[in-house]
Order: sequence, then C-alpha cells, then structure tokens
Amino acid sequence: MSGETLGGIGEAAALARIFPRLPAATRAIVGPGDDAAVLTAPDGRFVVTTDMMIHGPDFRLAWSTAHDLGWKAAATNLSDVAAMGAVPTALVVALAAPAATTVEFLEELADGLRDGCEAMAPGCGVVGGDLSVSSTLTIAVTAFGDLEGRPPVLRSGARAGDVVAVSGPIGAAAHGLRLLFDGAVVEQAPDAELARTLRTKHPDVSAQLAPTPPIADGRLAALAGATAMIDLSDGLALDARRVAVASGVALDVSLSAVGSTEALVGGEDHSLLATFPAGTALPGTFRAVGNVSAAGPEGARLLVDGHPFEARGGWDPYEGWNGENG
Amino acid sequence: MSGETLGGIGEAAALARIFPRLPAATRAIVGPGDDAAVLTAPDGRFVVTTDMMIHGPDFRLAWSTAHDLGWKAAATNLSDVAAMGAVPTALVVALAAPAATTVEFLEELADGLRDGCEAMAPGCGVVGGDLSVSSTLTIAVTAFGDLEGRPPVLRSGARAGDVVAVSGPIGAAAHGLRLLFDGAVVEQAPDAELARTLRTKHPDVSAQLAPTPPIADGRLAALAGATAMIDLSDGLALDARRVAVASGVALDVSLSAVGSTEALVGGEDHSLLATFPAGTALPGTFRAVGNVSAAGPEGARLLVDGHPFEARGGWDPYEGWNGENG
Repeated sequence: MSGETLGGIGEAAALARIFPRLPAATRAIVGPGDDAAVLTAPDGRFVVTTDMMIHGPDFRLAWSTAHDLGWKAAATNLSDVAAMGAVPTALVVALAAPAATTVEFLEELADGLRDGCEAMAPGCGVVGGDLSVSSTLTIAVTAFGDLEGRPPVLRSGARAGDVVAVSGPIGAAAHGLRLLFDGAVVEQAPDAELARTLRTKHPDVSAQLAPTPPIADGRLAALAGATAMIDLSDGLALDARRVAVASGVALDVSLSAVGSTEALVGGEDHSLLATFPAGTALPGTFRAVGNVSAAGPEGARLLVDGHPFEARGGWDPYEGWNGENG
Repeated sequence: MSGETLGGIGEAAALARIFPRLPAATRAIVGPGDDAAVLTAPDGRFVVTTDMMIHGPDFRLAWSTAHDLGWKAAATNLSDVAAMGAVPTALVVALAAPAATTVEFLEELADGLRDGCEAMAPGCGVVGGDLSVSSTLTIAVTAFGDLEGRPPVLRSGARAGDVVAVSGPIGAAAHGLRLLFDGAVVEQAPDAELARTLRTKHPDVSAQLAPTPPIADGRLAALAGATAMIDLSDGLALDARRVAVASGVALDVSLSAVGSTEALVGGEDHSLLATFPAGTALPGTFRAVGNVSAAGPEGARLLVDGHPFEARGGWDPYEGWNGENG
C-alpha cells in the first residue's frame, strides 16, 4: 500500500481514498460528489476567504509533515473567517501534487485537515475539492463562515478610546521558524531529523508548523461588541497598522504586553487582534495590549509605548528558497 | 511599465494593479480588502465549487494567452455552478505565478476573468483572492451560485422516459486541442505563432483555449423542470455515464445527434447535459440527443444507438508534458 503514488493510481482513485478521511460539514445540504456542493446560510449571508500554501515560499517538506500541512491550511483559512466574527462552517480544498506523491502522504494531509477542523472549528467540514498533478505541491483552501445574524467585524471600526486586545500567541510562530532556520538546516538544506528533535524541545516550533489559532474567540469577540478585528498573519505591527489605517485612528500598543520587538513583527501566528469599547469584559482568551486614540496630524498609524513604530519587521527567511532542496 | 514583474514589485503592489480590473459582484456585502468577503444568499443556501488550472497538465503558455487563462478559469467554474441549476454570483481566485511573471500578464489574466464573467454570467464578480509566488503557474478558482429558492439539480434525478438533452458544443474543445497538437507543435514544443494562425482558421481552437459554455441555460433548465444535470468536462460519454450511475438508469444517446465518436468522448466543452420529463419544451439552446430507460440486468450504463458504449475515450495529450517546454 505505502508505495502507491498519485500518478500511479490516478486522481479518481486517490480521491476515493482521501474523501472518507475528510470531516463532514454539518451545514452541507449537498456534499462532495456532484458538480458543486450546496450549503446552508441561515441568515441569508455567508463569509468567504481563500488562501494558498505553496511548496517553496510557504513550507519545507523536510520540516512539515503532511499532517502539519493539512492542519495549517485549515488554520490559516479558519482564522480569516474568525476575524470577521463568524463561525467557520465549511472548506473546499484544491490540492495539486507531484505525480510521485504517495497516497499515504495525501491521506495524512486529509487527516490533518480533519484534525485541524475538529480541534479548531467543530462541525466545519470539507464539502468539495479538486485534485491535480503539478510539479509544485500546492494547497488552495477556500473557507466559509456564518455570521449568525450579526454584522461582520471589519478592520475599519476601531474608535478612539477603544481597548486593543489580542487572543492567541504573539510571535510564537516566527520564533519557531527562527529556531528551525537556526537549528534544522544542514549545508543550506532543511533537515527533517533536526526539526523533529527541535520540535520536542520548543513548543514554538509546532506554533510555526501547525498553529492552533483561537478560532472560537472570533465569534466571542463579535458577541462582546468588538469594533474591529483582524487575523495576525503578517505580524502584529503590520496588521495593527492595517486596522489603524482602515479605521483612521492611531493604535498604541504596549511593548511589555506584547513581549518583545521580535514578537511585535513576527508573522504567521494567525491569532486575533480586536478592538473593544473601553470597559468591555474581554471574552475568551483576549487580553489587553494597548488602546486606540484619535489620529493626530501624522494620520492613522501604529504607536508602541507612545512612539511611532514604522518598521514592518518583515524578516522573510524563505525569500530566494525555491523548494528544490526540500 | 511592461517590464515589471511580480517578483520585482511584490504581491501587494501587484494586487493593487489587478483588483481595479476585476469585475465587482452585485451580491457582495463586503468585497475584497478585509480578512474575508461577505456575500448575500437570499434563499438561505449557496452553491460552491472549486477547480484548479495548472501549467503543464492543463495548459500551454505558448498556446493560451493570459486573457484565455482568466476566461477559461471562469468558464470551467461557472459551468459547475450552472450544472446545479444555479445562477453564478461570485468567484474567489487564488493565483500563484513565477516571480518573473510580468504585471502585464497578470493584468491580462484579470481582464480575461472580467470579460468571461461579463459574457457568461453578468453580475458575477471577484470578491476575494490570494496572490503568491510559485515555480508553477496555478489558478485556483472557487465559484458561488444562487439557487433562487429552487432545489439543486443533481446528477441522480434522471428517470426512465426522460429526454436527454445538451446545450452548448459537443466535442469542439477536444477537436481544437487535436488541431493544436497536430498543427502547432514544432520539435515537440508548442508554437505560439502556429497556434495564433490556426485559431483564425478554426473556431474550435478558441472552444479549447477560451470556451464559452451556455451558463444561463443552467437556470433555464432548472426552471423547465430538469430532473438531472451535469457539466460536460470529461466528455459526453464519461459524464453521461456518471448521470446514469448516479440515477440508476440507462442513458441512450444517438450518435447522429452527437455528431461523431470523437465528439462523444471529447472533454473540456463545459457544455450542459440535462434530462427532462418527456414532452418538456427544451429551454435555451438545449436540443435532444437521446432518452432515458430503466436499467436492465446489466445495471446503470450508457448506450449509444441502443448498444453498450464502454470506452471512455480518454485521449490525454497532456500526459507526460510537464510545462518546461512551454
């Protein structure tokens, strides 16, 4: 069994092996197997987001297991749904893989999607997909959510006087990636054994390879009256600045509450940043990290401890890596 | 301007150039620019399908223009929505392209998406997306549709006595592909100039490179009482057999109505095949090509002029091509 490949058994047979492992969506009226799926949208609206993970710029096969890739593909999309204040309901997954990819790898990736959905968004399932052969392993997920009758929580609603709060880790995923680049590369190639060992010693390595953002806190933030919300995919500094600009305000963040400058600029946590009216009892695992003030003459911007913070950070260790060496 | 590349200007700047060219969706409550989009689903349900196009197995850059690729990515997904009896409302598009891809190429691809939506599904627009760097040009589209209160038209509803009908070309796309492989390949590499010339002489070449399936006929079929429907992506023989198996019936197709055996097995038309109760006034451009009978002792299957038709056809000229030579 373990030697079977996608190219060897073909797409139809591979799909037949994968689909039974995928989670069912409680919202599906028509699931996989017809030309399209049909989902319920009880309040007459639905939230949709799409995100692609590509071998080379987005992950190393020596470091990430297939299960990690399925889990992370779910997590990165679920967090965008959560950041609107919605409950994730379903995913569709388009997967392209080299012909030599083993069926076992595809099954483990499906298991990662299932386990990620069950852990982060119970009831959310995979309602459709596409499986193709490509020289570059590529996972494109589109995720849906239900606002349950509430207005979406946009980036543009932060108001002077609001509290800035974060739920989920800040900087852990970037720290994990730095650990991998520092300690699991041999002769410029990522090393699987070193990565496995590092992972047992540093939980931040798993925060990078298989993050578990606080998906349920998106809905709780909306219920608590969040005025703006964003998913921290590019680092708190950059994403908080996006909220400031969209809302036309200044966000002032406390460095001690965030932890460190490295945490401030580290991406890929997929944690949630939200603003709440002052005095709101912060829901779930949200904790205050700053506050919102009116934009001064300098315009909408991010402040750290009251001082302008312009750096993006933007450490991009994958730049120039093309996937050919792992 | 024309020398600018995706890698040179970066994803954010490239997106800023692309988005103004994309069609707006009349159904969008929240469009591109936040963590996710929000769409209306007036009857409390929505249709969703996803399909990926990959350089190598799915297209040749010497033959397809960027505009063709955008148009075809729209067409192949819109036809799956139409095959449920739904009206396409919106797309999300995840695009991965080599760093050396010019911004002009991306703009033309966006124009193809726009022109395809406007021609085939007016009001359907792009509500979100993702842009990444990859060594393999990959276009993943997810499309949504509105059933307008009707039940979806599944593959499983065909009943003995129904008429089998088709809307749109049968075999034209496969014929166009054969013309390209026969007449636009030089020393095993696809040739752009020969393809352009061929295209001016044979409309079937455009049926392959930028098909225009009869999207509006999906809704009309549902309104007329279609009992089953499918998008002809893999050829009439294979897709009609899928309807037969899903419905537990035999579909008997007339070869003279279809045209030829080549037409019977040729894929990628994305035309619609539907079954209607006998006596139905066929809507739109649907014409009868056969009828449905009870499955005999041999079970659900496809017949052609009363005789079993087992061949898939399955001419796969791309097999073994990897995109490195065009």
